[in-house]
Amino acid sequence: MPQRASSVEPAAVFDLDGVVAALAQVRQRWRLAQQRSTEVGGRELPSRDALTAIMEGLRGALFPMRLGPPDLRHESEDYYVGHTLNTVLHGLLGQVRLELNYQVRHLASVDPSQLEKQTLKIIREFSESLVGIRTLLDSDVTAAFAGDPAARSVDEVLLCYPGIHAMIHHRVAHRLYKLGVPLLARVVAELAHGHTGIDIHPGATIGAGLFIDHGTGVVIGETAVIGANVRIYQAVTLGARSFPTDDAGHPVKGLARHPIVEDDVVIFAGATVLGRVTLGRGASIGGNVWVTHDVAPGAHITQAHSRQAT
Amino acid sequence: MPQRASSVEPAAVFDLDGVVAALAQVRQRWRLAQQRSTEVGGRELPSRDALTAIMEGLRGALFPMRLGPPDLRHESEDYYVGHTLNTVLHGLLGQVRLELNYQVRHLASVDPSQLEKQTLKIIREFSESLVGIRTLLDSDVTAAFAGDPAARSVDEVLLCYPGIHAMIHHRVAHRLYKLGVPLLARVVAELAHGHTGIDIHPGATIGAGLFIDHGTGVVIGETAVIGANVRIYQAVTLGARSFPTDDAGHPVKGLARHPIVEDDVVIFAGATVLGRVTLGRGASIGGNVWVTHDVAPGAHITQAHSRQAT
Amino acid sequence: MPQRASSVEPAAVFDLDGVVAALAQVRQRWRLAQQRSTEVGGRELPSRDALTAIMEGLRGALFPMRLGPPDLRHESEDYYVGHTLNTVLHGLLGQVRLELNYQVRHLASVDPSQLEKQTLKIIREFSESLVGIRTLLDSDVTAAFAGDPAARSVDEVLLCYPGIHAMIHHRVAHRLYKLGVPLLARVVAELAHGHTGIDIHPGATIGAGLFIDHGTGVVIGETAVIGANVRIYQAVTLGARSFPTDDAGHPVKGLARHPIVEDDVVIFAGATVLGRVTLGRGASIGGNVWVTHDVAPGAHITQAHSRQAT
Amino acid sequence: MPQRASSVEPAAVFDLDGVVAALAQVRQRWRLAQQRSTEVGGRELPSRDALTAIMEGLRGALFPMRLGPPDLRHESEDYYVGHTLNTVLHGLLGQVRLELNYQVRHLASVDPSQLEKQTLKIIREFSESLVGIRTLLDSDVTAAFAGDPAARSVDEVLLCYPGIHAMIHHRVAHRLYKLGVPLLARVVAELAHGHTGIDIHPGATIGAGLFIDHGTGVVIGETAVIGANVRIYQAVTLGARSFPTDDAGHPVKGLARHPIVEDDVVIFAGATVLGRVTLGRGASIGGNVWVTHDVAPGAHITQAHSRQAT
Amino acid sequence: MPQRASSVEPAAVFDLDGVVAALAQVRQRWRLAQQRSTEVGGRELPSRDALTAIMEGLRGALFPMRLGPPDLRHESEDYYVGHTLNTVLHGLLGQVRLELNYQVRHLASVDPSQLEKQTLKIIREFSESLVGIRTLLDSDVTAAFAGDPAARSVDEVLLCYPGIHAMIHHRVAHRLYKLGVPLLARVVAELAHGHTGIDIHPGATIGAGLFIDHGTGVVIGETAVIGANVRIYQAVTLGARSFPTDDAGHPVKGLARHPIVEDDVVIFAGATVLGRVTLGRGASIGGNVWVTHDVAPGAHITQAHSRQAT
Amino acid sequence: MPQRASSVEPAAVFDLDGVVAALAQVRQRWRLAQQRSTEVGGRELPSRDALTAIMEGLRGALFPMRLGPPDLRHESEDYYVGHTLNTVLHGLLGQVRLELNYQVRHLASVDPSQLEKQTLKIIREFSESLVGIRTLLDSDVTAAFAGDPAARSVDEVLLCYPGIHAMIHHRVAHRLYKLGVPLLARVVAELAHGHTGIDIHPGATIGAGLFIDHGTGVVIGETAVIGANVRIYQAVTLGARSFPTDDAGHPVKGLARHPIVEDDVVIFAGATVLGRVTLGRGASIGGNVWVTHDVAPGAHITQAHSRQAT
Repeated sequence: MPQRASSVEPAAVFDLDGVVAALAQVRQRWRLAQQRSTEVGGRELPSRDALTAIMEGLRGALFPMRLGPPDLRHESEDYYVGHTLNTVLHGLLGQVRLELNYQVRHLASVDPSQLEKQTLKIIREFSESLVGIRTLLDSDVTAAFAGDPAARSVDEVLLCYPGIHAMIHHRVAHRLYKLGVPLLARVVAELAHGHTGIDIHPGATIGAGLFIDHGTGVVIGETAVIGANVRIYQAVTLGARSFPTDDAGHPVKGLARHPIVEDDVVIFAGATVLGRVTLGRGASIGGNVWVTHDVAPGAHITQAHSRQAT
Repeated sequence: MPQRASSVEPAAVFDLDGVVAALAQVRQRWRLAQQRSTEVGGRELPSRDALTAIMEGLRGALFPMRLGPPDLRHESEDYYVGHTLNTVLHGLLGQVRLELNYQVRHLASVDPSQLEKQTLKIIREFSESLVGIRTLLDSDVTAAFAGDPAARSVDEVLLCYPGIHAMIHHRVAHRLYKLGVPLLARVVAELAHGHTGIDIHPGATIGAGLFIDHGTGVVIGETAVIGANVRIYQAVTLGARSFPTDDAGHPVKGLARHPIVEDDVVIFAGATVLGRVTLGRGASIGGNVWVTHDVAPGAHITQAHSRQAT
Repeated sequence: MPQRASSVEPAAVFDLDGVVAALAQVRQRWRLAQQRSTEVGGRELPSRDALTAIMEGLRGALFPMRLGPPDLRHESEDYYVGHTLNTVLHGLLGQVRLELNYQVRHLASVDPSQLEKQTLKIIREFSESLVGIRTLLDSDVTAAFAGDPAARSVDEVLLCYPGIHAMIHHRVAHRLYKLGVPLLARVVAELAHGHTGIDIHPGATIGAGLFIDHGTGVVIGETAVIGANVRIYQAVTLGARSFPTDDAGHPVKGLARHPIVEDDVVIFAGATVLGRVTLGRGASIGGNVWVTHDVAPGAHITQAHSRQAT
Repeated sequence: MPQRASSVEPAAVFDLDGVVAALAQVRQRWRLAQQRSTEVGGRELPSRDALTAIMEGLRGALFPMRLGPPDLRHESEDYYVGHTLNTVLHGLLGQVRLELNYQVRHLASVDPSQLEKQTLKIIREFSESLVGIRTLLDSDVTAAFAGDPAARSVDEVLLCYPGIHAMIHHRVAHRLYKLGVPLLARVVAELAHGHTGIDIHPGATIGAGLFIDHGTGVVIGETAVIGANVRIYQAVTLGARSFPTDDAGHPVKGLARHPIVEDDVVIFAGATVLGRVTLGRGASIGGNVWVTHDVAPGAHITQAHSRQAT
Repeated sequence: MPQRASSVEPAAVFDLDGVVAALAQVRQRWRLAQQRSTEVGGRELPSRDALTAIMEGLRGALFPMRLGPPDLRHESEDYYVGHTLNTVLHGLLGQVRLELNYQVRHLASVDPSQLEKQTLKIIREFSESLVGIRTLLDSDVTAAFAGDPAARSVDEVLLCYPGIHAMIHHRVAHRLYKLGVPLLARVVAELAHGHTGIDIHPGATIGAGLFIDHGTGVVIGETAVIGANVRIYQAVTLGARSFPTDDAGHPVKGLARHPIVEDDVVIFAGATVLGRVTLGRGASIGGNVWVTHDVAPGAHITQAHSRQAT
Repeated sequence: MPQRASSVEPAAVFDLDGVVAALAQVRQRWRLAQQRSTEVGGRELPSRDALTAIMEGLRGALFPMRLGPPDLRHESEDYYVGHTLNTVLHGLLGQVRLELNYQVRHLASVDPSQLEKQTLKIIREFSESLVGIRTLLDSDVTAAFAGDPAARSVDEVLLCYPGIHAMIHHRVAHRLYKLGVPLLARVVAELAHGHTGIDIHPGATIGAGLFIDHGTGVVIGETAVIGANVRIYQAVTLGARSFPTDDAGHPVKGLARHPIVEDDVVIFAGATVLGRVTLGRGASIGGNVWVTHDVAPGAHITQAHSRQAT
């Protein structure tokens, strides 16, 4: 960068050049510590803004007359869906390429020569999964309508319920996770987390008809498995108990460490279920209950409440 | 839709026509199952974006010098308020008409011939309720300032506190709920829920001077009744215990199933109060306490804590 | 305002003039009650929108290749950082001036004749603190990567983790708080609270390498002190137990009323720590545990769980 | 509008209330003079902004791969065209309804009971005319490419040439003019006039293959008739000579008062042709020439230049 | 600016640092040549974007139901006008201050100690002139409607005619010119020039009822004086003939050097009138005519046309 | 595209499917006629919107304190210039690649294997030409200030004068034209033409210090050559007389067919100069004069005016 032409200048409010230089040094230090290149080149990370736009398009393409543009009409639904999907899927293609590139450079988990082929494969398979995603989401909407006495119609559920918003994102994020782009999946999941307070890791496997009511504070971990027609209330945690470590003391990755929740289970607000335990079919877990062992099918677990008036 | 002119085309990245067709089929299946028309026509649901803009305008019209535009001046307050209200109320009129129309078609709860008249009546009564809403909100601001040692001024409270943001939305949503447009009310409530993590059902009846501190995770149910000068901390639930069902096993609607909280009650963080119980005047409920019975006026309920060092 | 030229007009949908007049009266009542001037003049409060833009710029300037614009390149990083900082810091200067002005008028905490000088001093010192802020944030990113088995890279952590988003805002807000502009600090903190559900008061003192996982529902109070390498999970509260009051019954301000958390402590989800207690170095607090006394270094506190099957 | 609550206020920079009142009076005076209603009600005029968006959509729908969105692809052209046309045509429907309403109230040229039926008829016929419009525009593009030695490709012509931009607008505007919505037509024409300096009245009848080069200053009047393959340069006027008046001295409307230009005519820059004269097939009119009589087919008219060196 | 941390970097596409340095040098050279300061400081010139927004607001405030927002209603006109004027006039105040400041620094035409007082005076007088401006513009609209057989209504004229758009800008610009802010006036005039091709210097004095038809290419000079009810067609020039120079050869400023056009004059397309000549009341100047001497009242000047067929 | 699921549908307002199909056919016909591919693929043409943004950035980078952002300050000029140039030049790189690709496919004027190398070369050379462009533009500003008695300062000239706006675009467009991307150059030229009414072909060679006053209607052809310190008024044409054709009747490309204008020439409004004639140094051409032969240095050409009073 050039030296300033004039060397005598009145003092400015702050020392801009100095701050810029100091920030460049601290970045440099970080990159050296992280063994990052400091070479010439462009951004290599996916973009949160791009994925926000992609998810907005996907929501519209999946539910055109309810989450699409206000001026949409039945007779032009297919045109809208086709045009939107084309934009969304080509946008997603760019983001997938960025993540695979990132994996090549920093994680060594992708063969560079296969990068373009794998990108196209992911997009193709993702596009084919959309019908299944919509079908599952229809079951989630139906479950919410059946499970909440305050719900007046399936449309109200789709339009208003944060649990549905979270499930739209999760079912997309889970598909991306399975297709090998976990960073994109994570960004999609966090978009919903920020909006709803519901934190579902994209790795979680979730069956049809999940109803999450209210939702704020719900946490569902990476290896959790949830069956069909499960109901979950606010502040429920399906978490890990502890992380087995290898000889070097690093957490062992890829172990199943979160609960299995079988069909028709209900988990009330604030309950905490930790570790690879199984909640048997039809069990119900009371509010604020703390569970670290298996629960038999059909069992009802409640807290022993002790109370004291003063 | 036309056949493509050219029948020999190189393969594209994905089968757009196929995906569009499959999504059309799954929509058709849903509509048949829900007994929805598949005829020609436009969107019939209210718009979240429209209500977002309406709420932004209402916040400004209610508190012009603090939540209105940055370049507003005292001498032009009335002009701003009048211009903004005109825009907001005519925008709301369109949304009310959409919801009443929806009720006519899907819920049979409105007489079609009265639709336009009822729309205008709702807008008129809503406009007349704004002064009362502002007065109640002033009491909420004062309560927050008095109740939080960290608050430096009433203006900081209005500008920053998520509890106030939630109450602005609730007091508007409750009015819409009472006027017969519960779907609009629900959307307004969810806008605040998404922003603050505070989930107040529009049906809840709330007196003057409610202070919700921190707020994330608070849930207040549809039939809850809250008196004056109540204080509530984060993660408090005022919920239902169970849903009485009719002979067919469907939840009976419209029953009072959430708590009554009398004047001057304080409920600390994480407490759960379930069912149509009454917390008597001046009672205090300790953190994380679980309450399913009435609490006498002035009583202090705390948890019996058991702790174990390992 | 002028009388309308024509006195015979058909009835409109609602009485706009009447509503505007009534709202003007209720504003006037509020101002008299708050002893506010009703004179001519402009807005005197800082702007949430302005601070939102400032924080977006700061995030980019601190982490240009990861949170900056998607088309940024290594070779122009310094230009981007310098240009963005110039815009951000001059924008912040305007907001600081607004808050100091507000303090002069309403809180009498600033000497009016020193206002401009103090404004410049705050901006200069804030600019010099940016390198320290970035260094601390690097330690937070490293801590999150080390502490979460699901994290694949430091970049995923920076891009996705709400705990990091909250810490970026907190480290900026805390600096503003220390420099004497607590209202700006509070707005910055609430921007993160709304986005992540993590509520950290700008006054809280936090050491290097804090990892907040999931985060929804976390509350950290104004006088809390947190050491290095602490880990906190969702719904943890570091709160006050009670507020000592003076003879007049008003809460005494400025007292240390929140916990001290020493280095290497882990606090699991839902735990509540209240009052000026100390969690000793290396202690761990189990999920949902309620703590109101000191905890010895290295101690492991867990809940005595009582469970009852029905 | 309400009286201000406080009657003693310091003087503001300007007398806002006084200016507003005075402007209300001058509007009232205008309305009385124009015999306009001053009653309650909304805007009744079409919107320039709405028509700007409609024209942008139409340009894209007519030439999707060249004037449509940059990310469009061949395989999704039909989806884009269908979605865009649906939006554009329903938007146009609203504007047509506004103009017909205006005609009912102010021009008495429409039977109110037929208004809705006529609106739909106009939209239907306009939609059916789009193929013809595109075909004519293709001929204009071809003509420009053939007529300009500087043109490198038909795509450059479509993308860059102001004459083509003007013709897209004219061919749409002329259709609207013929369908009975001359005000919409005029707005569309003025959008092109503002952009290109080419002023073609929507009433002008223009055959295939018109090439307007450079174009600034071209004026073509309402009753002009132009044949096929005509070429026109900048600053050419096809105007009226005088307006016959009726007994009351008002101009007689609807008379043919502009030139007829037959096929294959060329009119060079700055030429002026006035009145209902005919330029015969293949004639050429030289630069700056002034024509007020018929010109024989094949004739070449040039100016007698007198020049004087000093 | 700091030295780059790493001295060995691969070559980038272009030498960004080199280009930036070279551009800094050429700016420095310019500033030295123009005797400009190169010191620290902010922008001192008015902003085209700010004036664009101000003019859009003024057009709406002057003609609310026709050029204001599409959702405006009669019953809220005054609120809209008041709110818009407040924004516009305070925005203009900032621009006036910038220009006066500029005059102090570079033109020495303003007494610095009077700057703020003069700024307020200009705004106050401008606000008081708005009624007169609207009244004159009403006369322009009426004149256009009367003068064009193609005009169907006064509303079409206001909405569509570029001559009216130019006159709205001119009548505002002329007022600013007279109040002592000629640079702002010039920017306003150029906004209309760019949009319509009509170039009226803000200094020109224009009476009521001017109708400029088509307009492209019209030029009206700084000292031109135009009476009432004048009609002008496209490409008419009212220009200067030559510039008297002082002894040093510099043009003498402030001399009347453009034509005087008396009431009821008509000037047809392409006519050129140069110098301080007078076109007497009711005269008409034919198309393309060149006039450099006075024209008697009522005279009709036409070109002697010579034509030659080849 | 899929068949619609339901075959019995009420009639819609218009036949959307039919219109879409018909437009697809007419596009197909055009592509066959133009021998265009109809295959799968994306857009291949440069984007007007992209070039609009690029030119806005370039104007700011060339004149940061006058055409850059309003909040720019002297001390951060270099940062702004560097950041903006980086964005602009990489944006331009993408547009250059699009045009070269287009040349490969449709004009066969580029060797495909050299495409990327040539793209980079063009950007590098363009970046190096910016200093020269700025220097020439400084001379244009100085010339305008010297040549117009109404100009108050060089800053007013840069900010307001359409002739300067046109020259900024021309000097950039001419550079692009010389570098081998004439389509980009043409789009840049048309952006200025649309804004100012000044139509300069990017091929025209123009020396230092050109002043175009008023400008509307000026046309300067592709092979025109203009010396230093030339002054041109509105509606001046420097055009071609006729196009020599080859044996097949096609215009011969690349011939010099526009005038040469030597240093210090003045051409007054409306003058037309046609063909490869030379206007000798210091000559002046009067208003409306028609020139098709060489003019001697220093000569003054005026029109022989004939006038007739009636």
